[in-house]
Amino acid sequence: MQKVMKYNLILLLATILFAACTNNQNMKTTVPKISGFPVGEANTAYAQYFSGKSWVAPLTSNKDLNVPVSNVTFEPGCRNNWHSHTSGQILIGVGGVGYYQERGKAAVRMTEGTVVEIAPNTEHWHGAAPDSWFSHLAIIGNPQINKNTWLEPVSNEEYAAAINQK
Amino acid sequence: MQKVMKYNLILLLATILFAACTNNQNMKTTVPKISGFPVGEANTAYAQYFSGKSWVAPLTSNKDLNVPVSNVTFEPGCRNNWHSHTSGQILIGVGGVGYYQERGKAAVRMTEGTVVEIAPNTEHWHGAAPDSWFSHLAIIGNPQINKNTWLEPVSNEEYAAAINQK
Repeated sequence: MQKVMKYNLILLLATILFAACTNNQNMKTTVPKISGFPVGEANTAYAQYFSGKSWVAPLTSNKDLNVPVSNVTFEPGCRNNWHSHTSGQILIGVGGVGYYQERGKAAVRMTEGTVVEIAPNTEHWHGAAPDSWFSHLAIIGNPQINKNTWLEPVSNEEYAAAINQK
Repeated sequence: MQKVMKYNLILLLATILFAACTNNQNMKTTVPKISGFPVGEANTAYAQYFSGKSWVAPLTSNKDLNVPVSNVTFEPGCRNNWHSHTSGQILIGVGGVGYYQERGKAAVRMTEGTVVEIAPNTEHWHGAAPDSWFSHLAIIGNPQINKNTWLEPVSNEEYAAAINQK
C-alpha cells in the first residue's frame, strides 16, 4: 500500500511539473498573422533600443545586390528609440497599424502599403499602434557606409501625443 | 414640324455619341484591389517588353537613399520578356499570384511575402499566373550603374511549361 502511495505521489509531482512547463510555454508571446511575410526571431540584437517586444526576419542574403531587406514586427505599444541612419532608410508597411515620426513633425500612421522615406541623419522613431501589432519592411541603401545613432527612448508622453495628433 | 424633327435627330445622335463614349470608358481595364499598395499608371514605358497589360507605381523619390522601389501589377497571363539587370534586382510579392523563372531552372510561385533575389546578369522573367492578377515590389540596388538587357518574349509554350512544373 505504501508503494502505491509513493507511486501516486510521483505521478502527482510529474503532473504538476508537466502543467508548469506547459504553462511556461504558453507564456511565450504568440505573434498573430498580420501579413504573408515571415516574422523571424525575437529581435535580441536591438532589444536595448526598443520599448517592448519586437521580431526581425532578414529577407535577403545576396550582398551583391547591395540592399538588405528585413521584416520587423512590433507588439502593440512597442516602438524603437529616437535614432538616425547615415544612409537613411525606407520603411514599407505590410501588416497591422503603426506610426513613424520625425523629430518636430506630426506622426505618420502606417498600414499595408504605406511607404516612408527617411533622409540620411534624420532623427525619428517607428513602432506599433497601442492597440495593434505592426509589421514593416526595412530597407537600407548604401549599407557598407551606414551607421546608426541610437538616442533616448520615446517617452509615454511623446508616444501618446504623436498618436493623438492623428 | 421640320424643326422638331431636326431637333429630335440631333438628340438621337447626341444620345448615340454619349452611349459610345460611356461604352469606351467601360472598356478600360479595371484593376482589382489585390494589395494595400497603389497600382499607379499603365506601364507604357516598358510595354514593348511585356506580353499583356501591366501597371507601375513608383513608391520612392529620394535619390539620396539609392534604392528606387516600385510596385508592378500584371493582369492575368501577363509576363515580361526574358531579361537581365547588371545590378540584379529584388522582387517582393505583395498581392495575387505570380511566377518568377531563371533560365534553365524551375519557376518559383510567388504570393504575398515571397522574396526573390536576382543575381546580376541573370536571365529571367516574371509575371502573373494565368488565372490571377499579381503585384510585386521591384527594388534595384546600385541604380546608377544598372543596365537592363531585354531579350525575346516568353513563348506560350515556355509559360505553360513553367507553370505546369509547380
